[in-house]
Amino acid sequence: MSDIRTKFMEVYSILKSELLNDPAFEFTDDSRQWVERMLDYNVPGGKLNRGLSVIDSYKLLKGGELTNDEIFLACALGWCIEWLQAYFLVLDDIMDNSITRRGQPCWFRLPKIGMIAANDGILLRNQIPRILKKHFRDKPYYVDLLDLFNEVEFQTASGQMIDLITTIEGEKDLSKYSLPLHHRIVQYKTAYYSFYLPVACALLMKGENLDNHIDVKNILIEMGTYFQVQDDYLDCFGDPKVIGKVGTDIEDFKCSWLVVKAVELSNEEQKKLLYENYGKTDEACVAKVKELYNVLNLQGVFEEYESNSYQKLVTSIEVHPSKAVQAVLKSFLAKIYKRLK
Amino acid sequence: MSDIRTKFMEVYSILKSELLNDPAFEFTDDSRQWVERMLDYNVPGGKLNRGLSVIDSYKLLKGGELTNDEIFLACALGWCIEWLQAYFLVLDDIMDNSITRRGQPCWFRLPKIGMIAANDGILLRNQIPRILKKHFRDKPYYVDLLDLFNEVEFQTASGQMIDLITTIEGEKDLSKYSLPLHHRIVQYKTAYYSFYLPVACALLMKGENLDNHIDVKNILIEMGTYFQVQDDYLDCFGDPKVIGKVGTDIEDFKCSWLVVKAVELSNEEQKKLLYENYGKTDEACVAKVKELYNVLNLQGVFEEYESNSYQKLVTSIEVHPSKAVQAVLKSFLAKIYKRLK
Repeated sequence: MSDIRTKFMEVYSILKSELLNDPAFEFTDDSRQWVERMLDYNVPGGKLNRGLSVIDSYKLLKGGELTNDEIFLACALGWCIEWLQAYFLVLDDIMDNSITRRGQPCWFRLPKIGMIAANDGILLRNQIPRILKKHFRDKPYYVDLLDLFNEVEFQTASGQMIDLITTIEGEKDLSKYSLPLHHRIVQYKTAYYSFYLPVACALLMKGENLDNHIDVKNILIEMGTYFQVQDDYLDCFGDPKVIGKVGTDIEDFKCSWLVVKAVELSNEEQKKLLYENYGKTDEACVAKVKELYNVLNLQGVFEEYESNSYQKLVTSIEVHPSKAVQAVLKSFLAKIYKRLK
Repeated sequence: MSDIRTKFMEVYSILKSELLNDPAFEFTDDSRQWVERMLDYNVPGGKLNRGLSVIDSYKLLKGGELTNDEIFLACALGWCIEWLQAYFLVLDDIMDNSITRRGQPCWFRLPKIGMIAANDGILLRNQIPRILKKHFRDKPYYVDLLDLFNEVEFQTASGQMIDLITTIEGEKDLSKYSLPLHHRIVQYKTAYYSFYLPVACALLMKGENLDNHIDVKNILIEMGTYFQVQDDYLDCFGDPKVIGKVGTDIEDFKCSWLVVKAVELSNEEQKKLLYENYGKTDEACVAKVKELYNVLNLQGVFEEYESNSYQKLVTSIEVHPSKAVQAVLKSFLAKIYKRLK
């Protein structure tokens, strides 16, 4: 595992160097330095789970040792997902006016960056098809790769849109936050690109037609939903030192799983308290919301949700006809079950 | 011509309705309304020259009447370029902190929009591959279309990057603004998507291999440069009522063709005046810069540039072996020569 991480980082250096010398654009010295710094700051600093899981998944699907060429290609696809993630995070941090990300200040908050970060996000996004064209143009699945990345990006941006709009509506009336709405936001905003995309990349590399794998997609979407509920939980109850950011979902009026559950479980008096204190930057308000979460035992409710989701996922994985696909799905589930960050 | 504009607007309605019912995303009522309003506000309100020129170009390349199917497809590609333009404008206005666009407030300045506009820009961009997939997936040139749009978007974002970085550097030292740098920014930021892309779309529809048309690309890039110099000129000397915006290049420290020429033509004293007054919001400073532009006779310098560029472009067009291609290029040139908006 540590071996593959080293290899993965080597491929990052190669891809970066190719992008900094892309003949489709004549860099100035200033702009080449800018892009290199921007990439190093935003792309490789995460947990790299999404990227690495392409390689793991492909290995399990193939069921044997990978050639050097296969390792390189799987790493390149993994990095495309990390690039996509970096693009979303850079732009989301601007939109959410966030402070920190991955234990460091958000990119747009650095001196002399500011709104240029929006274009940097766009650049990150535009480097993905450059990587795909350079390394996959002659593959029979090239056009399917382009379609896949396009569709998943579209779904993610659409999920982000309903998240943002919902927050406007929720600020007027908190009862608009419901479990089905939360599920829809999470499915589009997170699950497609974080869970479905890595496995879909591995399936395409393996020569599979994605239309034959709707069941795999559905299981991964459910897994992604479970992952985001964990994320919502950790935003409030996780350790900021461990998760690498200070959660601000309460202050930001986020349609978090926690507030949806709180609305559902509150009596009239508790609802009033929630309506009065949710979405305020005042520390005292945030504390009152957290206190209500404790009174409602949301930690216990979450633990029950976690074990139920886990059981359901295991059951649906075990009916899948292919043992190799089962292995891929189980490996994903194992990585996130009871995670602390 | 008015006929084709009517047809073009009909196709807009069709594409919009398809996007609002795209099965790849489950809209909520709120989000469908949001997208419809966002599209109507940002996509069809421009001059539509880029979009319409796909149809004109294809007609000239074919050299005969178009079938209904061909008209629809050419319109759809034209709209993809208008969508791309809308995406760039929405994000550029955020980055430049602009006030008005196409005679109305910038999208991000409307109540309740703000930074959500960044995601709306992303959505506009993501709708392009949805349109392409729906209407071109089975065409032999589908993958070339995807590659084309990806490459041109990459080049545009890269041009925007050097523009933004140059402004940071220029604020420290105005002499960094030079004609070659200006040319590079313009080539990437404007010329590829505004001039090359419409013709490249028409060539692909006609079954041409774009690798065989490097000379066409080069002529269109030069034409795009000429167009942007006009734009820089109009920002200062054009009529705001006619161009639909109040120019702020001087206040924004833009690497405009005018300031580059002014640096080139100024004596030491004039340079000092320029360095002291360029890039300030103070009206008196802006007036001093404009006065210097008049003293240096930049209107005359521009007119000379305009007629030289025109002559050079005509000459390079006339050596092109294909009369149909010549017609396409001349039609472009005729549209922009001596434009006032």
